[in-house]
Amino acid sequence: MTGRNNPWRTLGSRAVYDSPWISVREDAVVSPGGRDARYGVVSFRNTAIGVLPVEDDGHVHLVGQWRYALGAFSWEIPEGGGRKDSDPLDEARRELREETGLEAAHWREILRMHLSNSITDEAAVIFLATGLSHAGEPAREHSEQDMEQARIPFADLLRRVTGGDITDSLTVAAVLRTHQMAVKGELEPGLAEAILKGAR
Amino acid sequence: MTGRNNPWRTLGSRAVYDSPWISVREDAVVSPGGRDARYGVVSFRNTAIGVLPVEDDGHVHLVGQWRYALGAFSWEIPEGGGRKDSDPLDEARRELREETGLEAAHWREILRMHLSNSITDEAAVIFLATGLSHAGEPAREHSEQDMEQARIPFADLLRRVTGGDITDSLTVAAVLRTHQMAVKGELEPGLAEAILKGAR
Repeated sequence: MTGRNNPWRTLGSRAVYDSPWISVREDAVVSPGGRDARYGVVSFRNTAIGVLPVEDDGHVHLVGQWRYALGAFSWEIPEGGGRKDSDPLDEARRELREETGLEAAHWREILRMHLSNSITDEAAVIFLATGLSHAGEPAREHSEQDMEQARIPFADLLRRVTGGDITDSLTVAAVLRTHQMAVKGELEPGLAEAILKGAR
Repeated sequence: MTGRNNPWRTLGSRAVYDSPWISVREDAVVSPGGRDARYGVVSFRNTAIGVLPVEDDGHVHLVGQWRYALGAFSWEIPEGGGRKDSDPLDEARRELREETGLEAAHWREILRMHLSNSITDEAAVIFLATGLSHAGEPAREHSEQDMEQARIPFADLLRRVTGGDITDSLTVAAVLRTHQMAVKGELEPGLAEAILKGAR
């Protein structure tokens, strides 16, 4: 991955939009093929943080909300924007607590991704949270007041992901990675067994 | 998933940016919690198309290129923007042919995702391509003139994904989904065996 240089040349840059969540700029560039072009880039102020909360018996907790940008309701793992200058794990603990009221005794970072790298710099960090306990009521933001919660078997979540019913990229990746960890013996045996029950 | 209504109210909308790939607008909204807010939304003109090309012996083909928006070099499955009014499979065939020079006898849609649904409406469709043959030289776009190619065992790709070295979301999801299909018996047995060799 190292040793390669940026083959694009940037001739100029113009700010076109700014919000608490994103900024958009348009650069005048010369492409690797030598052509003059304009490149619109969306920069994210936060890191996307996702948490897959799994109980010892293999049940998972999901939240559902209307996604305004998509124009559709979406069931997902708890997730949200984490400050780039914070520890992603602290942000994950906060998101899980705020959206579901849950705390977890055990945390494990399971994936890092870039979500849409042709246009954006958005990065994601995904955690597996186990040893769950109820810490209180959710404390959701005003944009999340329609949020619903569900508790379903891992195998059902996997089927809804592979069947195209659940499509959020962090959720898809978290579920498939956790399945692979269970198969590969990277999870505590009892948890792996509970996760794979009905899932293979 | 059905039966739920949009809990957001849109009071107005302002176009802020437009390119051949995205448009950005800012809506004046009332959130589900009843608060006035502004919501910046990035709409994508194309659907993200990804193709995981796997040989009978379990080797996969990757492409690597500098991702300008990310400011980094990235190894990925062949992918690109597909026209929304085209069949995603046709767009997948074209992307694979253009980026690698490969054709595939067998195609299977394996995942649908929304990549970043808090801000964008970007959708992705991912295919598994098998029965590969060389159809000629790649025919890359001017923005892809720095593109490199690699052929590596599936198990190596899986390790690079789970280790955080390969982070592109379509690549991460495609690899983990194909692993899960192999484990679950959803692939032809010889191919599943080749994929799982060294991978579990």
